[in-house]
Amino acid sequence: MTTTATSARASATQLAVLAGGVGAARMLRGVRRVLADEHITAIVNTADDTVLHGLHISPDLDTVTYTLAGAIDPERGWGLAGETWTAMGALVRYAAARPEGSTAGATWFNLGDQDLATHMYRTARLDEGATLTEVTAEIAAAWGLGMRLLPMTDDPVATRVTLAAAAGANAAGDEIGFQEYFVKHHHDVPAASVRFEGVEAAQPNGVDLLRDARAVLIAPSNPIVSIGPLRALEGVDATLRSRRESVVGVSPIVAGAALKGPADRLLSELGMEPSVVGVARLYAPVCGTLVIDHADADLTDAVEAEGVRCVVTATVMSDLATAGELARICLAAAGWDVS
Amino acid sequence: MTTTATSARASATQLAVLAGGVGAARMLRGVRRVLADEHITAIVNTADDTVLHGLHISPDLDTVTYTLAGAIDPERGWGLAGETWTAMGALVRYAAARPEGSTAGATWFNLGDQDLATHMYRTARLDEGATLTEVTAEIAAAWGLGMRLLPMTDDPVATRVTLAAAAGANAAGDEIGFQEYFVKHHHDVPAASVRFEGVEAAQPNGVDLLRDARAVLIAPSNPIVSIGPLRALEGVDATLRSRRESVVGVSPIVAGAALKGPADRLLSELGMEPSVVGVARLYAPVCGTLVIDHADADLTDAVEAEGVRCVVTATVMSDLATAGELARICLAAAGWDVS
Repeated sequence: MTTTATSARASATQLAVLAGGVGAARMLRGVRRVLADEHITAIVNTADDTVLHGLHISPDLDTVTYTLAGAIDPERGWGLAGETWTAMGALVRYAAARPEGSTAGATWFNLGDQDLATHMYRTARLDEGATLTEVTAEIAAAWGLGMRLLPMTDDPVATRVTLAAAAGANAAGDEIGFQEYFVKHHHDVPAASVRFEGVEAAQPNGVDLLRDARAVLIAPSNPIVSIGPLRALEGVDATLRSRRESVVGVSPIVAGAALKGPADRLLSELGMEPSVVGVARLYAPVCGTLVIDHADADLTDAVEAEGVRCVVTATVMSDLATAGELARICLAAAGWDVS
Repeated sequence: MTTTATSARASATQLAVLAGGVGAARMLRGVRRVLADEHITAIVNTADDTVLHGLHISPDLDTVTYTLAGAIDPERGWGLAGETWTAMGALVRYAAARPEGSTAGATWFNLGDQDLATHMYRTARLDEGATLTEVTAEIAAAWGLGMRLLPMTDDPVATRVTLAAAAGANAAGDEIGFQEYFVKHHHDVPAASVRFEGVEAAQPNGVDLLRDARAVLIAPSNPIVSIGPLRALEGVDATLRSRRESVVGVSPIVAGAALKGPADRLLSELGMEPSVVGVARLYAPVCGTLVIDHADADLTDAVEAEGVRCVVTATVMSDLATAGELARICLAAAGWDVS
C-alpha cells in the first residue's frame, strides 16, 4: 500500500471502532447497515494472538473477517461454517505420543481444516516480511471485505493471566497465555491478574484515525482482555480522552452477565463491578456515552453518576436489524445523525 | 532419549540403509520381512525438506514413515491413504489475492489435511527445541514403527537446482529449491547443476552405524538428489569406502529409466550415463555390489567393469514378496545369509 493510498484511506475513515471478537463482529455488521464500508475502520485486538503448531493465529481478526464475510459458523460464533476437523483429528496420534513437558500436537485449540488455510497464509506472509497490517488487509480483500481492518499493532503483545486457583496442570499463581485461560481452561478458573506483555514497546496502529474520525465506537467486547490491550497502547487513551464527547461505548455486560465469555467474572475477580456501572467506571475517562440494554434501564442514574451519558436501547444483537439500529443509536449519541 | 538408550539402540542396529523416498520405503518394507525391526536403521535424506506456510516438511521421512505404517496412499506413492484436501482448497482464495512477488498460499505442494498434522507436530516440536532426530523418533513411535528412522542430519541442508532452461516464471540459470524443481515444475525442466546448501557445515547422523553395522544397503533412490546429499555429509563416503565389501546398492534405474522421478534425466543432464552402468560408476567408490534388474542383465559385464560385483534379480518391488526377496539377496551379497 503506498503512502498516498494510506492517506486517502485514512481520510475516508469517518468511524473508528475499537474491536474484540464476537461482540465487535456483530456490532460491525450493524455499523455496515448505516455507513458505507469505506468509511469504517475497525481497530482490532491482537493480544489474544498466539502461535500454535508454528502457525500465527489471530482469533479476533479472524472472527471479525469471517463474520463480515458471512462465513462464520453461526452456532459456535467462531470459525467457518461447514468446517471439517480432519487435521485436528490426525493430531491426536501425536499428542498421545509426545514426550513429557511438550505441548506439541495440542488439540485444545480447535482449528478447522478451512480455517487452517488462513493461519498458513498469514504465517507465510509474516515469514516473507509482511506486517500483520498488510496480511490482514490481504486476508480481508480475499474475503471481499470493503471495510478496513487494522490490527491494533504489528508488534507482539500477549495477554497473560495469573491464576487465582489451580486448574488442570496449572497451580494457583501460575501465569498462562490468554488462549490457555480462555480455551484450554474454558475461562472457568478465577484470575488473579491480567497483563499485556509487550504493550509498552508496541507501536499502535490507527491512533491518527482515533483522533481524526468523526466518531469512535467502543464495541461490546470484553473491557479487560479485548478493549484493555487496545487502551494500553501508547497514545490511545490520551487520544480518546481528548475527544471523549464523540466516543461512544456499548456495554458488553447485560443484566450483570457477559453475553459471551468471561467479562463478568473477570471484572469481579479483578475487583470491579460486573455490571453496566462497572463498565461505565472503566470507560468514563475516555467515553462520553455508554449505551446499555433495556434490561439495565434501572441503572441509568448509577451509570450517569460515573460521569457518562447513558443511552438505553436493545443491545443484544440477535439479528441484523437490531445491530443496525444499535449502530444508528450509537452514532446519534456521538452527534452524528445517519437516520 | 538417554545416552544409554541411544547406545543400546545403536548396538542393536545390524543393517543401516541409506534412504530417499518412495523406492527406499518399498525396500525397507522388504528388509523388514527378513530382519527384525530393531536391527534396522534407515538413515534418511533430509535435503528435500522445506518450510511451507511456516510448517517444516520432511517429504522423505514422511514417505518412509507412512509406507512402513501401511498408511501411504498406494496410488500416489506419497501422502496418506483416504486423504482430504480441505485446507489446500481453502488456500486458493488467498493465493489468488496475494501481492505480486509473494509465494504465500502456494498450492503447488499438495498437503492433505491428515498429513498437515504431521508437519504441525514436527514444527511445534522443533520450535520447542527438539532435534529433528527426536521428532522423527516420536513420529515413528506415534505410527507404531519399530524400525529406527534417523534423519541424515539435524542441521539444515537444502538441495538447490540450477535450471538449464526456462520454466514457468523461472529463467535458465535460475537456482531454485528442490521442491520447486520436483513438484512445482514436475521435474520436467532440464537441470544444469545441483548442490546441497549447508552440507559442509552439517553434522551427520549415524556415521557410527554406517561403520559398525553388519551390512549397509543403499536403497534404490535417486543417486543424485536422494543418496547424493547423504554421501556429501562429512565422513559418510569415507566410512562406506572403508567397508566397501559389505555395502550393497540397488540400482534405481531399470532399463535406462527411473521407476519414479527424474533420476534418469538428472543423470543424463549432469553428464552421467542414465543406466545401471552410470549408477555403478557413481557408487563404485563406496559399494562392493550393485544389484540390478533382470531387464539390465545384458549390462552385467559393463557394470562389473566399473569395479563392482553385479547381482541380477527382480528389483521392481510391485509386491511385498518381491521386496522381501530383493532384501534377502542384498544381504546375501553383503555376505549375510538370512534365508
